[in-house]
Amino acid sequence: AEIVVLPGDGIGPEVTAAAVEVLRAVAERYGHDFRFHEHQIGGAAIDATGEPLPQQTLDAARSADAILLGAVGGPKWSDPKASVRPEQGLLAIRKALGLYANLRPVKPHPAALGASPVKPHLLTGVDLVVVRELTGGIYFGQKQRTADSASDLCEYTVAEIERVVRRACELARTRRGRVTSVDKANVLETSRLWREVATRVVRDEFPDIELEHQLVDSMAMHLLAKPREYDVIVTENMFGDILTDEASMLAGSLGLLPSASLGEGRVGLYEPIHGSAPDIAGRGIANPYATILSTALLLRHSLGLESEAHCIEKAVGAALDAGVFTADIAAAGLGAGTHAATSAVL
Amino acid sequence: AEIVVLPGDGIGPEVTAAAVEVLRAVAERYGHDFRFHEHQIGGAAIDATGEPLPQQTLDAARSADAILLGAVGGPKWSDPKASVRPEQGLLAIRKALGLYANLRPVKPHPAALGASPVKPHLLTGVDLVVVRELTGGIYFGQKQRTADSASDLCEYTVAEIERVVRRACELARTRRGRVTSVDKANVLETSRLWREVATRVVRDEFPDIELEHQLVDSMAMHLLAKPREYDVIVTENMFGDILTDEASMLAGSLGLLPSASLGEGRVGLYEPIHGSAPDIAGRGIANPYATILSTALLLRHSLGLESEAHCIEKAVGAALDAGVFTADIAAAGLGAGTHAATSAVL
Ligand SMILES: CC(C)[C@H](C(=O)O)[C@@H](O)C(=O)O
Ligand SMILES: CC(C)[C@H](C(=O)O)[C@@H](O)C(=O)O
Repeated sequence: AEIVVLPGDGIGPEVTAAAVEVLRAVAERYGHDFRFHEHQIGGAAIDATGEPLPQQTLDAARSADAILLGAVGGPKWSDPKASVRPEQGLLAIRKALGLYANLRPVKPHPAALGASPVKPHLLTGVDLVVVRELTGGIYFGQKQRTADSASDLCEYTVAEIERVVRRACELARTRRGRVTSVDKANVLETSRLWREVATRVVRDEFPDIELEHQLVDSMAMHLLAKPREYDVIVTENMFGDILTDEASMLAGSLGLLPSASLGEGRVGLYEPIHGSAPDIAGRGIANPYATILSTALLLRHSLGLESEAHCIEKAVGAALDAGVFTADIAAAGLGAGTHAATSAVL
Repeated sequence: AEIVVLPGDGIGPEVTAAAVEVLRAVAERYGHDFRFHEHQIGGAAIDATGEPLPQQTLDAARSADAILLGAVGGPKWSDPKASVRPEQGLLAIRKALGLYANLRPVKPHPAALGASPVKPHLLTGVDLVVVRELTGGIYFGQKQRTADSASDLCEYTVAEIERVVRRACELARTRRGRVTSVDKANVLETSRLWREVATRVVRDEFPDIELEHQLVDSMAMHLLAKPREYDVIVTENMFGDILTDEASMLAGSLGLLPSASLGEGRVGLYEPIHGSAPDIAGRGIANPYATILSTALLLRHSLGLESEAHCIEKAVGAALDAGVFTADIAAAGLGAGTHAATSAVL
């Protein structure tokens, strides 16, 4: 299998290197042939080529079986007046590859509950996946700027909503059969369309799925008050961005949460949901678990290697059970380094 | 003082009645003359007049010193295809009166920490106010609907951002002098404008204020992980809606959180941040504390009666200290009714 690796910025190179080590170990143990092709994206790509997503990177991504990404961005490229920004590389690759469904599973590991701001008794048994629409909405609508105003257009077509709701329902069928669709239908026209389409898709195509609608503001509360009640949560791009970062707190740290971005084809993009953490970059202390767990999703969703995926998830679980905590989840703030954590998984 | 009371729907009539009782007690004790004028809004207004904000209600609101509102909405009026919705009444009155700054203080009461999903040691000392922009953004931008798509426009002018940032800075000056401005400047044009304007207003007019910028997704995490670090948080309409409901969980229950919506004039609108809770309406078990605390904000911001405001806040604190918990915050789910809670405050 051809795997394109996009380290990106900040801690991106450190965590992707750790994840590639793990994938190499899996290849060896199970007798697979994984080939890794490293390319630039984000700030690193801007520095090298002037563009956040060079054509060469996009071409490589298009012909790969799967893409592993670190993170993009950093203060160096954050001038609000800059005309190219690292994040554009990430948004452009998601859009160009049609990766409209971003799966963000949240299943707090018992050993890491101490790191969550949420009370432990609310967290036991939590096992949810947020399916975030990733190539539409206000992220990609027309943007305008005049001397004294600015605007962003949030737009959704029926087809865009249908496909992501279907994906959420298919996922729910392999789980507990429940889908919570999140919108702001009491205010937004796009949300009213979202609610109508979700209702119709479930009624006509997934009568076995139990569908519930939630307003995004209530969801932001319920996610904390009763996280156990959710199975699959499907929502639009911007709401998904906010709710998944909030949901990450259930797992104790952003550093534990993987994600998969999927489209119609087999190629998917896998990345930790954390950012480039420029403040700790290069110090060997970044938490590699989220990126390593992202390779499990890669094996499962793009390569169809379920036992290999499970093996990685078990190994990360064992490392956590053994108390190998990086600084972001360690109680005293003093934790294992990236290398030690990766070794524990290996 | 002339106080317009808009009970609205669901538990709205119960909680506003409780709050009016408390205001009457304050009037008597301090020798004020408060006159109450009840009008319709929301679903109740739709049923009576066909409109969610009848002209008569708006006229009364315009000539009042302050407005006390319960809540609007309910399943009866929630058909997504309905052309009039209760929420339109709320949005219309905010807009018509120019109430652009929505203040939502969050200060968890020690006695109610048990009701919060967040660990108590993170909550002690939390004392923050979210200043949410309330009359702009995607709530009020142009909405469109075609057979196979929908859109909502998010728009902000420099003037709209300036005035709400100023209000946040003025508030911060009476507190710990820190303002956190929340946006999504790595993706949205409106957010980039927001960030520029906030930076300039603070630099030119409030050099004594310590300004920090946060991306909305990070904010959704930090609000849980380190809530003590925030003083005043200022953000746009939609982000403020989501973040304040999330922040309400710090206080244990939405039923404890008041809000004030202010404009350039003296008239303000005061309402609990909870909704109409149609499932418990009419049962006498709604938590009246948020609405009672909203009257404290009313006395402070519209009538300039600081000791009276403080007196109400102390009385609610004492009721909580005495363990008078309504069902939403009581450990076993069995709590005091609306009447008992109101009596405890009185
Ligand atoms: C970096 C940013 C553009 C991105 C997003 O908002 O989608 C990130 O926050 C994420 O969630 O992957
Ligand atoms: C009822 C609804 C329109 C309203 C809003 O979104 O502003 C409510 O959620 C609030 O926060 O006051």
